[in-house]
Amino acid sequence: MTAIARSWNGLSDRNPLVQFVDVCLRGPAQVVFQNNPLSGLLILAAVAWGAFENGQPRVFGGAVVGLLVGTVTALLLRVDRASWRKGLFGFNPVLTGIAVPTFLDHRPLMWLYLVLGAAATTVLTLALNNVFKRWGLTAFTFPFVLTTWFLLMAAYQFDRFSVLTKLTPKFPGGGDITRGSFDWGLLPSFLRGVSQVFLIDSWVSGLLILVALLINSRWSALFAVVGSVGAILLALWFGADATSLEKGLFGFNAVLTAIAVGAVLHRPGVLVTAYTLFGIALTLVVQMAMTTLLTPLGIPVLTGPFNVATWLLLLPDRHFAPVPHHERVEDGVASAVRRSV
Amino acid sequence: MTAIARSWNGLSDRNPLVQFVDVCLRGPAQVVFQNNPLSGLLILAAVAWGAFENGQPRVFGGAVVGLLVGTVTALLLRVDRASWRKGLFGFNPVLTGIAVPTFLDHRPLMWLYLVLGAAATTVLTLALNNVFKRWGLTAFTFPFVLTTWFLLMAAYQFDRFSVLTKLTPKFPGGGDITRGSFDWGLLPSFLRGVSQVFLIDSWVSGLLILVALLINSRWSALFAVVGSVGAILLALWFGADATSLEKGLFGFNAVLTAIAVGAVLHRPGVLVTAYTLFGIALTLVVQMAMTTLLTPLGIPVLTGPFNVATWLLLLPDRHFAPVPHHERVEDGVASAVRRSV
Amino acid sequence: MTAIARSWNGLSDRNPLVQFVDVCLRGPAQVVFQNNPLSGLLILAAVAWGAFENGQPRVFGGAVVGLLVGTVTALLLRVDRASWRKGLFGFNPVLTGIAVPTFLDHRPLMWLYLVLGAAATTVLTLALNNVFKRWGLTAFTFPFVLTTWFLLMAAYQFDRFSVLTKLTPKFPGGGDITRGSFDWGLLPSFLRGVSQVFLIDSWVSGLLILVALLINSRWSALFAVVGSVGAILLALWFGADATSLEKGLFGFNAVLTAIAVGAVLHRPGVLVTAYTLFGIALTLVVQMAMTTLLTPLGIPVLTGPFNVATWLLLLPDRHFAPVPHHERVEDGVASAVRRSV
Repeated sequence: MTAIARSWNGLSDRNPLVQFVDVCLRGPAQVVFQNNPLSGLLILAAVAWGAFENGQPRVFGGAVVGLLVGTVTALLLRVDRASWRKGLFGFNPVLTGIAVPTFLDHRPLMWLYLVLGAAATTVLTLALNNVFKRWGLTAFTFPFVLTTWFLLMAAYQFDRFSVLTKLTPKFPGGGDITRGSFDWGLLPSFLRGVSQVFLIDSWVSGLLILVALLINSRWSALFAVVGSVGAILLALWFGADATSLEKGLFGFNAVLTAIAVGAVLHRPGVLVTAYTLFGIALTLVVQMAMTTLLTPLGIPVLTGPFNVATWLLLLPDRHFAPVPHHERVEDGVASAVRRSV
Repeated sequence: MTAIARSWNGLSDRNPLVQFVDVCLRGPAQVVFQNNPLSGLLILAAVAWGAFENGQPRVFGGAVVGLLVGTVTALLLRVDRASWRKGLFGFNPVLTGIAVPTFLDHRPLMWLYLVLGAAATTVLTLALNNVFKRWGLTAFTFPFVLTTWFLLMAAYQFDRFSVLTKLTPKFPGGGDITRGSFDWGLLPSFLRGVSQVFLIDSWVSGLLILVALLINSRWSALFAVVGSVGAILLALWFGADATSLEKGLFGFNAVLTAIAVGAVLHRPGVLVTAYTLFGIALTLVVQMAMTTLLTPLGIPVLTGPFNVATWLLLLPDRHFAPVPHHERVEDGVASAVRRSV
Repeated sequence: MTAIARSWNGLSDRNPLVQFVDVCLRGPAQVVFQNNPLSGLLILAAVAWGAFENGQPRVFGGAVVGLLVGTVTALLLRVDRASWRKGLFGFNPVLTGIAVPTFLDHRPLMWLYLVLGAAATTVLTLALNNVFKRWGLTAFTFPFVLTTWFLLMAAYQFDRFSVLTKLTPKFPGGGDITRGSFDWGLLPSFLRGVSQVFLIDSWVSGLLILVALLINSRWSALFAVVGSVGAILLALWFGADATSLEKGLFGFNAVLTAIAVGAVLHRPGVLVTAYTLFGIALTLVVQMAMTTLLTPLGIPVLTGPFNVATWLLLLPDRHFAPVPHHERVEDGVASAVRRSV
């Protein structure tokens, strides 16, 4: 395995085409904080599986187009080459590429909109990382989130697009929540909580993504499971909507928070785990709050709650003295768009 | 008096338990920018009075629990000790502790939610002060405001919580405003405008809070009155809703702006008073605008308008040359969570 | 011409009254990034023409009052004199002065509201430029936008004001968009796209504003036309609302983005033009998104979309290596409220 990896890396250094493929593959892996082309390949396979399983092959097509357009736009804008090679300019456009065909109806103009959106995602990646680096933070997946919110809200004003989010814009508080109750049929939902990171509703895809994490970082795989299970159980306890719960929709933001706070940006340990569990609860509350905030606008929260919660958890970081090897955090978030992986 | 104060301070330096009590008492006082345990004790008494008068003793219980949880969380996160001793990590959680039982129905799970919220308030105190210190500002009461907005908006999505804000989410502009007119029966409303800083609707509590201000800073007490009277009269003139006016709901944000801008962060004087009067009008306009903004979401403005208006008034401060002893401002807002009191 | 200009400038240096007139005239010109009193005079004439043509002379009165109050407030707050002399403290209040009588009904109290709003605009000009200079940006017209949003949203809560935006607050997605189709009758709309920068619906005013641009900067005039035509054609293609299209309402934000990105803050060229065309599309999408966002609140987007899109386009600027004479950008946006014109 290591021999193959080494020869791939060597080939990637010499051959520009292989390098481009390598960079594109690292993009999907960077969504879940992994810098590994094989993980990225597995995740692309997971997206393909989910797209075909749900009868929406165009979602996989969108992922590939978004990834290519975003990565090429970054080249045209002459971004920092080292960050580019790590796939840090691929993970946001690939998500935009998945979101546009998921939430808009299928017609030729949608593809132009997707290409414009993927290019805009790269511009916003540069813009927002410039904003957040003032506090030693990165923009995470927020360039994708903001671009997709813009695209969907704009689509409501255009006759040539139809928004398919299945969200009815309405005021909060109708008392129409159907509470779920625990039974073992909920097990696939924990895996769907992982696949929903990529807007995919499929436990098989969730399993594939966990494998993609496992081959690069066991801590990341473990905390992904902890995040999904923790948030879904808490949502169940507080009486959240049963249908969304089953689809894993209360898990995916906590999955990302748990990987970021518990496994990647801090050295895993008891105190960090306690802080991460608190972070999972915070992410759920922020997600539910953003659901109330965005429902009148008819747009989904996407991974916005993960971004907000994780920024809030990282901002006090210098006060979080008990974290051993604090300097890894500095490494991880100090420069504009680099994460220590 | 001074002798008692001196011996209390000495005791507080030596005895950790007395110190903890001292720090907890300074929390409620710091809401109104006072660093004085006796002021804090009087304010806690005012909250207790209002809670029992309105038949909601759990509101006082929430204040105490929020204060304790927030202050202990700050210790666990090893915050700056000097700031902690001034009560600067107590004033936001005590407000969250009052808000949760005020706006959510009474059931055991509410207390867990309150504890989670108070801990989150301390994390947000660190996070938001880190954000705002880039402009020489502090986060004021915004950690409480943001946490409570998150908690209430999230509660709408949970079957196990009911939101009791008595706000019907709706679009602006229904023409259903009942204008008030001036009569001397409005006098208690000016005092309610002070008590509403702590979400309490009671003129007795307002009076107690004014006494709490008076024993520490006469200028603060004076500007609190100016803020409440000024904003309520302006709201009356512009034709604001009579019911809210009577409850003092158009006064409390201006009370805080007036204390901050007129008495604490600048040296009181003619020019500063003129700027403060302008600031009171600005605070009222921002409050009414935020009411329109938040009504569709079914959440109250809390002290958000004070925060927004005061940041806007302080941001141009270096241009405000006529202010004598300008350096006091620098002292007051330069470091992360310290205010010159 | 140059001789007259030279003698005017000399007179303006010696005579305080002439200087004040000169500064006031530069304000309207700075809205479209021109530092030229004659351009400002032409623009004021364009506003007057539009106001009288539409039977709303009070709109022109508001422009003059807003300009005077804002410029004098800046003097009282002792702002940077060099910035003040360039009209950089006039261009936001003049817009607030136009917006208030446009969107509120006519009554004496409206004029007090306008004066308060114009003074607040100057405070916000100082405040927001202090915020944005951390990223080498200026606040552009956002002080006007934010102040006017505050004033209008607050007006909904006051019985003594009526909001006349003709916007019915509602949820997005009613399928009630009437698509336009191209015919040559659309030509005046391109000019209205220019006049709408100043909230004026008149092709004559648009033509006057283009002349005002032309006498100071041909590139600015050219890019204003490109912005208006480009955004309106794209809106037509995507199927935007025909009535708003005809009034030029999809053009004015792109006009400002195109002047800023294409002509003023970069040296015009092929790559910059490509980036500007992308920026025009981005501005349209952001404008439509903000329309969805603000419709439930019953307030117009104003020039908010231009501000948001242009910040996003400028933030990654240091990565935009192909731009020749990159240092002009630094000059243009480096200091708080100075633009290189």
